[in-house]
Amino acid sequence: MKTVKINPAGSITTPRGYKAAGVYCGIKEKGKDLALLFSDMPGTAVAGLFTTNVFKAAPVILSRKRVHRGYARALLINSGNANACTGAEGAKDAEEMALRVAKRLGLSAEEVLLASTGIIGEKLPMNKVYTGIEQICEALSSDCGHDAAEAIMTTDTFRKSMSTCFEIDGRNVTIGAMAKGSGMINPKMATLIAVFTTDMAVEPEPLKEALSAAVQPSLNALTIDGEMSTNDCVFIFANGAAGGDFVKRNSHGFDGFVAALSGLAVEVSKSLAADGEGATKMITVTVEGAASQEDADKAARAVANSLLVKTAMYGKDPNWGRIFSAIGACGIGFDPGDVFLAISGQTIACNGAPVNFDLQKLSHSLESRDIAIRLKIGGGIHSATIYTCDLTHEYISINAEYHT
Amino acid sequence: MKTVKINPAGSITTPRGYKAAGVYCGIKEKGKDLALLFSDMPGTAVAGLFTTNVFKAAPVILSRKRVHRGYARALLINSGNANACTGAEGAKDAEEMALRVAKRLGLSAEEVLLASTGIIGEKLPMNKVYTGIEQICEALSSDCGHDAAEAIMTTDTFRKSMSTCFEIDGRNVTIGAMAKGSGMINPKMATLIAVFTTDMAVEPEPLKEALSAAVQPSLNALTIDGEMSTNDCVFIFANGAAGGDFVKRNSHGFDGFVAALSGLAVEVSKSLAADGEGATKMITVTVEGAASQEDADKAARAVANSLLVKTAMYGKDPNWGRIFSAIGACGIGFDPGDVFLAISGQTIACNGAPVNFDLQKLSHSLESRDIAIRLKIGGGIHSATIYTCDLTHEYISINAEYHT
Repeated sequence: MKTVKINPAGSITTPRGYKAAGVYCGIKEKGKDLALLFSDMPGTAVAGLFTTNVFKAAPVILSRKRVHRGYARALLINSGNANACTGAEGAKDAEEMALRVAKRLGLSAEEVLLASTGIIGEKLPMNKVYTGIEQICEALSSDCGHDAAEAIMTTDTFRKSMSTCFEIDGRNVTIGAMAKGSGMINPKMATLIAVFTTDMAVEPEPLKEALSAAVQPSLNALTIDGEMSTNDCVFIFANGAAGGDFVKRNSHGFDGFVAALSGLAVEVSKSLAADGEGATKMITVTVEGAASQEDADKAARAVANSLLVKTAMYGKDPNWGRIFSAIGACGIGFDPGDVFLAISGQTIACNGAPVNFDLQKLSHSLESRDIAIRLKIGGGIHSATIYTCDLTHEYISINAEYHT
Repeated sequence: MKTVKINPAGSITTPRGYKAAGVYCGIKEKGKDLALLFSDMPGTAVAGLFTTNVFKAAPVILSRKRVHRGYARALLINSGNANACTGAEGAKDAEEMALRVAKRLGLSAEEVLLASTGIIGEKLPMNKVYTGIEQICEALSSDCGHDAAEAIMTTDTFRKSMSTCFEIDGRNVTIGAMAKGSGMINPKMATLIAVFTTDMAVEPEPLKEALSAAVQPSLNALTIDGEMSTNDCVFIFANGAAGGDFVKRNSHGFDGFVAALSGLAVEVSKSLAADGEGATKMITVTVEGAASQEDADKAARAVANSLLVKTAMYGKDPNWGRIFSAIGACGIGFDPGDVFLAISGQTIACNGAPVNFDLQKLSHSLESRDIAIRLKIGGGIHSATIYTCDLTHEYISINAEYHT
């Protein structure tokens, strides 16, 4: 993975030709709860990836259909209510939201996409939403990317907004991003809500290909609590405002674009892991030496989703046996006598048994906010990296009290 | 499932011809930590089921091999140390423990089985264990079944010990049981540590068949935290002390035995769920109408292992959307428009959307220590029931602080 230079002050309006806004309309008790992204350029290409949950939220069903066209101009996101498991009424509400945005912005309804996040199974307070739509269309500005990033937060403790910039054929291109976590996250095909914008000129098909490639080692490698939401989605808009011809697949420019997008998506994923509900630590789990990609992925996810590993990390407890137990139970075959384990660079076990490691040094390294668990399970060539966080008292508090 | 009459005061020494003991030998900081079961009858049949974790503890490897012979007389169990991931030295320690018990009791080493539970990856304090073995062989008594049940506890808050009694062909037969939870529990083939004793005359092969049948709807239907241990095992001893001929497969007597054993195992499982680490509630998840047994099982386990469902139950939070999200994400196919949900007898959703239910009544029913989640996901004939508990602050405390 190529490391890209991240601008932490960047946002979805850092690329040229985008406006955004974030307002409070009363869906949540407090805090901004409505976000809007708008591209100035007609013919802005769009791609998206969506939850594979059988229960798909109304906005997911609507957006999935419209993204298929390959072009869109606006994306409205509300937080505080998922508009999921809301039946025909929820679908009608979603249609109406998009229609009102389209009218105010002079677009066709098909050019407006939606996403929602929040409580499942409750009807949206539509009068508040309509008032909010009026306000937010007025508030659109090329300076307000951060407001939008704030407005999509639920239990997130900080907004996830950043950008990266690179040169292709002498032309400066920017990609901006915003995302929200921070519970119910265990993406398969798609994940949570993440939005990327770029001023590069990319047509819909290659844009989709770039997005799929970029989320694989990033958002799809993120797990907070093993849950996949009814509302997960990731979008990318490409409006071509940087000028130049459409980038071609298999070109130097396209490869550079994918590399930059992937690098940015990894940084977004890390910030989501670090801000997992109640998290005090970001944990990177790497499994090497697996016989297949599937095995590597399964083993790394088993460790990352293990409640006992996650609570041990929270307790700064060098209880490495739980890591062995987790990979041993995950259903893949390997020789326990081959297993190597290192935690934050310190070798703990070799050939399946503990080495004579420095317990104090290990305990000390577990004080860090950033923990790396590295396993080698054999002589295979496949490896996988998964990003997660610890499991804490605060996660329980947040999720035992979220509804009421 | 036939309900059996449970004697909560019963134990593994309630059936005739068994002695047991539980002592403190210093593996744990406090509390009994060594248990011994002994059958008076030569030719006592035994069957066992063991963890499928790749990392099998030394006592599991030893016992699995010996159980294969079909006969055993004694079972030594220590708590506080799992003797897992301890390499060749751990295997040698296990051999030596069994040998010392055999010598003291006048048995051959092959007649002694072992189980261990506790911290993974640390060497057993063998000198303490040897002293404990001397003591515990002295302490064996037909009155001390409860002491043994106490001695196998780790984070359990109460001992699990009970028995059931039934008549077969005019003869009274008893089955006793003890078990320990209460974290790292998500059995597949086998589970945790559970020990059954019976004075019925059963030969090894039918005994194994009866055990496999009995754990399916009980111990294999139990999940506390989705973790499968390196040390899970379940044993049954049948010493024939009730008299009579060996029971034949496919006979009335065998069916009665399997029914009684299954019923007892379900009660043991429920008590383990109720005492799951940090648990405040026992939760029974039933999925009906599935297209296959595998689908029913997968869906019920997905709900039972969902952190968000478990924390909602802890918070007495009627956040039913999380139940839908969990089954929607579990990877089985069904029509969301067909789904029915009831919580503790109250209908919450029909045809995939909420009905106009009484929120106050639902909130009130969530105050109970016993919650029933019932889902119907289609017109299929398959169903599954899984037992679990809620996820609480106390679970985090226990597991963040267990090691140190």
